[in-house]
Amino acid sequence: MRVLGVDPGLTRCGVGVVEGEPGRPPKLVAVGVVTTASTMDHPQRLLRIETGLSEWVAEYAPDVVAVERVFADQNVLSVIGTAQAAGLAMLVAARAGLPVHTHTPTEVKAAITGSGRADKAQVGHMVARLLKLTEPPKPADAADAVALAICHLWRGAATDRIAAAVAKQAAARATA
Amino acid sequence: MRVLGVDPGLTRCGVGVVEGEPGRPPKLVAVGVVTTASTMDHPQRLLRIETGLSEWVAEYAPDVVAVERVFADQNVLSVIGTAQAAGLAMLVAARAGLPVHTHTPTEVKAAITGSGRADKAQVGHMVARLLKLTEPPKPADAADAVALAICHLWRGAATDRIAAAVAKQAAARATA
Repeated sequence: MRVLGVDPGLTRCGVGVVEGEPGRPPKLVAVGVVTTASTMDHPQRLLRIETGLSEWVAEYAPDVVAVERVFADQNVLSVIGTAQAAGLAMLVAARAGLPVHTHTPTEVKAAITGSGRADKAQVGHMVARLLKLTEPPKPADAADAVALAICHLWRGAATDRIAAAVAKQAAARATA
Repeated sequence: MRVLGVDPGLTRCGVGVVEGEPGRPPKLVAVGVVTTASTMDHPQRLLRIETGLSEWVAEYAPDVVAVERVFADQNVLSVIGTAQAAGLAMLVAARAGLPVHTHTPTEVKAAITGSGRADKAQVGHMVARLLKLTEPPKPADAADAVALAICHLWRGAATDRIAAAVAKQAAARATA
């Protein structure tokens, strides 16, 4: 399974593509950021983000898109831009017919480091170790997007296994 | 000048197209809503809004798009969806090469009724009177979108006149 992780932001959208199977180490396919200048017109920034994310989807053909969940209790000045960038990531995925899942920062930190309260440095360190990189992807938004993609790979796989087990049990009951 | 007004919302995006010239009564071209069901997947709702707004732009070919400005101090549970819908309106306009302007609800109320604290009924009443309709457009989101378009027609025209006067004065000074 190939996952595109998006850490949404108006100035920097982190993007990371990771490939993996349950029980095997994840593999980094690509990592980067889609950036817009604060001097740009707001609608032009949104168009740039949408175009940039569409290019990532077209180039790396992920099976699923994972987007960091936006909370309204963040800094109120930045929540609107972050929510709009997250919305564009979902739009791009939906238009490409891809499933979208969201994960909270706490879920991502817990999946990667074992602690929901880990700091950015710890997450970056674990991302580098998991992917056998000499250092964490930069900038931090890119590392966060990769962490999100790995989190989805693991949590998604677990969810799929649970769903499969439930379906199997239901089928067994039906034939009993 | 033809203005497409958008009152952004995840469940109901009001849309209104109004045509006019400074000093002449505005004319209603079209009014409606783009709706999404709360039972839909969130990314699918965003795709539906983007597709719906794109259809309005393609069908009515406005010269400019006016979007109600989103505030982070609204109900925190709804601000994310509203911000995303507003972002999609801006995206659709930018992609079509159209200028986008935002106006606050207070600016719209003041432009239409003379009071920034007017209620929805007063705004609807004045919209109907200005456009010579027997009753306000329904639902309220559609009436709000029309009010926004009229507000832009008037404020935008005023801004253009002020800009033209300033430019004229600057030119006169330069040749004096």
